[in-house]
Amino acid sequence: MVTMEPRVALPPPEGMVRVRMWMAYDGAGFSGFAKNTDVRTIEGVLEETVARVLRHPVKLNCAGRTDRGVHARRQMITFDADAEHFDGALLGRSLNRTLGPEMTFQDVEATDPTFDARLSCTGRTYRYHVYNHPVPDPLTRHTTWHVREPLDLDAMNEAAAMIVGGHDFTTFSKKNKSRPDESFYRRMHSAEWFLDRDQTVFEVTANAFTHSMVRSLAGLMVEIGRGRRDPSFMATALEAEDRSFVLSPAPGHGLVLWDALYDFS
Amino acid sequence: MVTMEPRVALPPPEGMVRVRMWMAYDGAGFSGFAKNTDVRTIEGVLEETVARVLRHPVKLNCAGRTDRGVHARRQMITFDADAEHFDGALLGRSLNRTLGPEMTFQDVEATDPTFDARLSCTGRTYRYHVYNHPVPDPLTRHTTWHVREPLDLDAMNEAAAMIVGGHDFTTFSKKNKSRPDESFYRRMHSAEWFLDRDQTVFEVTANAFTHSMVRSLAGLMVEIGRGRRDPSFMATALEAEDRSFVLSPAPGHGLVLWDALYDFS
Repeated sequence: MVTMEPRVALPPPEGMVRVRMWMAYDGAGFSGFAKNTDVRTIEGVLEETVARVLRHPVKLNCAGRTDRGVHARRQMITFDADAEHFDGALLGRSLNRTLGPEMTFQDVEATDPTFDARLSCTGRTYRYHVYNHPVPDPLTRHTTWHVREPLDLDAMNEAAAMIVGGHDFTTFSKKNKSRPDESFYRRMHSAEWFLDRDQTVFEVTANAFTHSMVRSLAGLMVEIGRGRRDPSFMATALEAEDRSFVLSPAPGHGLVLWDALYDFS
Repeated sequence: MVTMEPRVALPPPEGMVRVRMWMAYDGAGFSGFAKNTDVRTIEGVLEETVARVLRHPVKLNCAGRTDRGVHARRQMITFDADAEHFDGALLGRSLNRTLGPEMTFQDVEATDPTFDARLSCTGRTYRYHVYNHPVPDPLTRHTTWHVREPLDLDAMNEAAAMIVGGHDFTTFSKKNKSRPDESFYRRMHSAEWFLDRDQTVFEVTANAFTHSMVRSLAGLMVEIGRGRRDPSFMATALEAEDRSFVLSPAPGHGLVLWDALYDFS
């Protein structure tokens, strides 16, 4: 049962222009991207600020709706703006002045009317950062997950290889109660653990990710790396299509939306 | 006028053992290393905690008395402990549990009675981190100095070469009023700017540093990198032995005490 989303968005209404911009943020101070009552979210803060600068309401789309505490290095945002007064460079400076350096913006510009941050995105890359050492690191503690027990990188990569390709990721997905018929099928292009100086990093690229998917995958692979599970447990868990196979997702502060892929040059 | 400090410390009193440990910290929450009334300092917090764990007062020595907001990756600490009950591993676990992950401790152990974190140190290495980009980086903003204007790395390295060797660093030193006859002569082993991925880093090693010296040097070299001064201005400033040549030291949060060098194996 593969549900494919339409890949082309509607153009903006008459007199409006489609705007795109790259965005980065420190997720520590936010309850995730998606707007939600009574909590501080990336979408909530950004939508309000863009609306105030443009003097009209806006509706944002993004490449990846990151969870609570998750960071972004390259997040894409699109929205529609009044064409008559639109000045991308001016808007970018204004947003950076108001929201930076917690959130920053680059290449704010008018784009193709059917371009959409979510629907035009052909792939997302996330990186999960682990600091694997007996003692934590004071200087990267806000952006890495500290794991004390020595990790077996080969075992973790054996497990990572099992998720590449098209799979139903129900086991690794948090269900959305308002979308009972949601599909958890995703196409995983690459998934690999590697050492990056003193950090142990998981880099994963897929057409798209479900809610809490990267953290659930990373959490289970760290269990495998600690030797508490065999690498083959990853295939068993994936095939089971049962969320109870994931004991605990890795914490949000180690995760970064690393890049969003588009066909524009 | 070269004042050399004695390089050997006194041994601990009878019944005490000399203890050494490596320490790292995030300097953001501290008014520097040195104890000071009414402010939170590394020394103040650590001395109090060690004393509580050991149940007797201690006096700490360190490799580098870092300024307000400055971080440490490898800081050495020595003090004397009651020999009868001393257990380094236990003390290390206790300090990490109480003070981590803001401060962390490794290799807590009894050492040579005349070893001293300050007097036995043969050299200190600091790294200053600049993020040189039109827009700041949300994820490294607490540990890098954001400089907008493009920097000329060649010009900065031309200036850096001028400070290598033995010099009077009066121009780059904050005077201590209680030590009017203090010498600012230091021997600079190496000083170099390099690109480290998306950061512009100044690494400098000397026998020792004076108060605010690395930040003053980095601040002036960034002025040179911006093209506001010629590289030759560094030699002029150094020879002038006049602090008014340094317009503004680089901010503390970009600086890390990277390593402390000792002759032990």
